[in-house]
Amino acid sequence: MIKIALDAMGTDTFPSADVEGAVLAAREFDYEIVLVGKSELIEKELEKHRPVPENISIHHAPEVIGMHEQPVLSVRRKKQSSIVVLTNLAKEKKVDAMVSAGNTGSMVCAATLKCRLLPGIERAGIGVIMPTLKGTALMIDSGANIDAKPKHLMQYAIMGSAYSEFILNNRSPRVGLLNIGEEESKGTGFLKEAYGLLELSGLNFIGNLEGRELFKGDCDVIVCDGLVGNVALKVSESTAHALVEMLKRELKSSAMAKLGAMLSKAALYSLKKKMDYAEYGGAPLLGIDGTCIICHGSSSAKAIKNGIRVAGEEVIKNVNQHIVEKVT
Amino acid sequence: MIKIALDAMGTDTFPSADVEGAVLAAREFDYEIVLVGKSELIEKELEKHRPVPENISIHHAPEVIGMHEQPVLSVRRKKQSSIVVLTNLAKEKKVDAMVSAGNTGSMVCAATLKCRLLPGIERAGIGVIMPTLKGTALMIDSGANIDAKPKHLMQYAIMGSAYSEFILNNRSPRVGLLNIGEEESKGTGFLKEAYGLLELSGLNFIGNLEGRELFKGDCDVIVCDGLVGNVALKVSESTAHALVEMLKRELKSSAMAKLGAMLSKAALYSLKKKMDYAEYGGAPLLGIDGTCIICHGSSSAKAIKNGIRVAGEEVIKNVNQHIVEKVT
Repeated sequence: MIKIALDAMGTDTFPSADVEGAVLAAREFDYEIVLVGKSELIEKELEKHRPVPENISIHHAPEVIGMHEQPVLSVRRKKQSSIVVLTNLAKEKKVDAMVSAGNTGSMVCAATLKCRLLPGIERAGIGVIMPTLKGTALMIDSGANIDAKPKHLMQYAIMGSAYSEFILNNRSPRVGLLNIGEEESKGTGFLKEAYGLLELSGLNFIGNLEGRELFKGDCDVIVCDGLVGNVALKVSESTAHALVEMLKRELKSSAMAKLGAMLSKAALYSLKKKMDYAEYGGAPLLGIDGTCIICHGSSSAKAIKNGIRVAGEEVIKNVNQHIVEKVT
Repeated sequence: MIKIALDAMGTDTFPSADVEGAVLAAREFDYEIVLVGKSELIEKELEKHRPVPENISIHHAPEVIGMHEQPVLSVRRKKQSSIVVLTNLAKEKKVDAMVSAGNTGSMVCAATLKCRLLPGIERAGIGVIMPTLKGTALMIDSGANIDAKPKHLMQYAIMGSAYSEFILNNRSPRVGLLNIGEEESKGTGFLKEAYGLLELSGLNFIGNLEGRELFKGDCDVIVCDGLVGNVALKVSESTAHALVEMLKRELKSSAMAKLGAMLSKAALYSLKKKMDYAEYGGAPLLGIDGTCIICHGSSSAKAIKNGIRVAGEEVIKNVNQHIVEKVT
């Protein structure tokens, strides 16, 4: 049975959503789930979910890395933290995959240091699945590595393509380079060099992609460096949030609008769900010799469950092997 | 009387929105407006707006730079284009300000080459006014210069602060650096250096700002390099567009939702207006020795009118003089 370790100290309200997510996953999937964190806290939380599924176990880790701790330092100093213990389990192949909603930087750092990278890969990248008008797209890197070189972007493209093909079921995924304009001549020297590499990569490279095309759905894998990707991701989340806030205010502005809002409530709810990245089950950290899913700190139990589901799928579909075959 | 030159060949549907915008502005404001472009086309278009206000005149420019032409080449080759002729009028001080909805890259290039930069400024930056939950914020640079140095970001901060103070009426504008995280230690070497310079700048620097805080409204001037700014701007536009599209689809999904949508139509319209950057009157190109407002290619006549209004305000409020005083 596939064994997945979950950081029980991950979400902003740990361990409640984490443990509940694990319970939901254990009931729904044939995975063995190992909850990593303070055992007494986890046990207490599990009490709320009786009967506790048999495919859940606890692995004690007494320390917790906070959301705002510095990645490298926190991993070096807190050797008994849930994140470090989690990655040790993965490194020693005691589990097949790991899932965490904790400090992203620390998770990336620990996973890269402990599990090392796949042969041919020089930098890990975080792939985020974004909703588009036609389905979803994977954006990589959304913040694992902010000092990328052009060749790293090509490696992201290879990893993203493998993920898109085997997990998101896109045959021959279209790869686009996030840039300031569509023409080949656009962008910095860094981007032009990446463009050249992508053209020669043998991937289904469709050229530069402007920020405005992110949600059109004409591209399956959006490649960018970690700084640009992080800004793009957070700006899109924040735009969606601001828009929904503004809409709520507008809908409260008159009795007519209020009634309208009531009637269209289901539609609004469905939209909110579509814009909710958590639904898609976390972001894969691609490039490490292991399987790691990073969830949002604000993840719900359902989002954690989906993260566990996707981690299992990645193992079953052998995504890493496909990456290695393509890159070497 | 303040004299403003408008590129009549600017919008995607030139000269119709451009000329109509000029007519609206000429009727509303005490500015003299010079329409630059193909005179026969402009004259024909003006026929639709009889009686033509007396404070409108035409300056012939037989060539047009297309939206997808390469900036430097187009400016060098098309010396009789509306954009180049426009900037020559500004350079020779025959007009006080210029407004264009044409090729942004060409406009930036022509304005920088012809008008030169203000003393102490090494790169021009485009400031974009974005709606926030509490009002508006200025993001600079949103794409004039994609190979910025840390000191250019400090110059953007100074220029943005002057604009925010004198045009957007923010006393002591709060300046934030767009980065991957809030902590001082975050980001690339480039961003850390910019952070250090901003701390010593004497401006009201409030530190790093994550992409997710862009719309919160706790910052008045958002500083970033042109690549990041361009991606942020376009991603936010595209998110808003995608959300509205998704909402429309959801609202059509059931009879109840349809009725709801009808009742809340005014609220949705008001929201759309709030998200419509064009309403704010274009983006100032700051740093050049002159006044230049860049409008969206898809600008409506109203957006062009607002661009002309803001250009005039910049001249009246002496924004450039305030920039020079702060930078030197």
